[in-house]
Amino acid sequence: MSESSRSQSEAVYLEDLTVGMVFTSSEYPLDAGQIREFAQRFDPQPFHLSEEAAKDTFFAGLAASGWHTAAITMRLLVESLPLAGGVIGAGSEVTWPRATRPDDVLHVVSTIMEITPSRSRSDRGMVTVQSDTVNQHGDLCQRSVARLLTFRRSV
Amino acid sequence: MSESSRSQSEAVYLEDLTVGMVFTSSEYPLDAGQIREFAQRFDPQPFHLSEEAAKDTFFAGLAASGWHTAAITMRLLVESLPLAGGVIGAGSEVTWPRATRPDDVLHVVSTIMEITPSRSRSDRGMVTVQSDTVNQHGDLCQRSVARLLTFRRSV
Repeated sequence: MSESSRSQSEAVYLEDLTVGMVFTSSEYPLDAGQIREFAQRFDPQPFHLSEEAAKDTFFAGLAASGWHTAAITMRLLVESLPLAGGVIGAGSEVTWPRATRPDDVLHVVSTIMEITPSRSRSDRGMVTVQSDTVNQHGDLCQRSVARLLTFRRSV
Repeated sequence: MSESSRSQSEAVYLEDLTVGMVFTSSEYPLDAGQIREFAQRFDPQPFHLSEEAAKDTFFAGLAASGWHTAAITMRLLVESLPLAGGVIGAGSEVTWPRATRPDDVLHVVSTIMEITPSRSRSDRGMVTVQSDTVNQHGDLCQRSVARLLTFRRSV
């Protein structure tokens, strides 16, 4: 069931979600300059900083920091999963099956995996969301499985 | 067992590591401007953008994006865990027990949890590292458990 046609301004509450719902983001084009800039601040390693220096490393060429891919994923998630109260994560399991590269165009496909109403607080629950970050070739660059705090409508 | 006195320029190989080893980073001071700047790019939600707008949210005040805390943690990890070949993660489980706030001073304490030599490739293995990101009050802002590709010395 695709929810990609849902208006982004329409807030989504816990009771609007069902397991299997899919939310698809817009696209995010990435270039070498962005990769280097993020790396200089947060992950200053040769394979994230310089095409030349990256050649003889595990990545055999410039690659984005996995945390850059994670940050871009969050950007796309904020735009594509309009949870009422915001996208508030308690935690996330992240894997990077392949490197994100210069000139990749990323988008995120998020699937509702589990919905757990709170036992102690009737106004909220936790929703488990799997978000796949995919490039223009359909390659999976990141999979994250996050637990998100989600609110119910006030009655 | 503390390894914090180890020279940062001295590369660490798989066979140098033992379960229980601890690596402690330097400190990273965070301010409201940095929190807002990261959020504008990667996590543009009211509680990460504006002290005023954050007041009536779950966070009840300006809080850093969890992915900002994760990126800072990576910065501190690159400096404090001098793995030969670099800090290369296959994946990570991240939790945020409490929000990172303006004027927090963060440091990271990393503990070697598990060492698994590769069965198919004799030059490498996977090391599981728990990294706790702690503020100046000793509060745990993030715990990550990452699987890092680690190389052996060439023989």
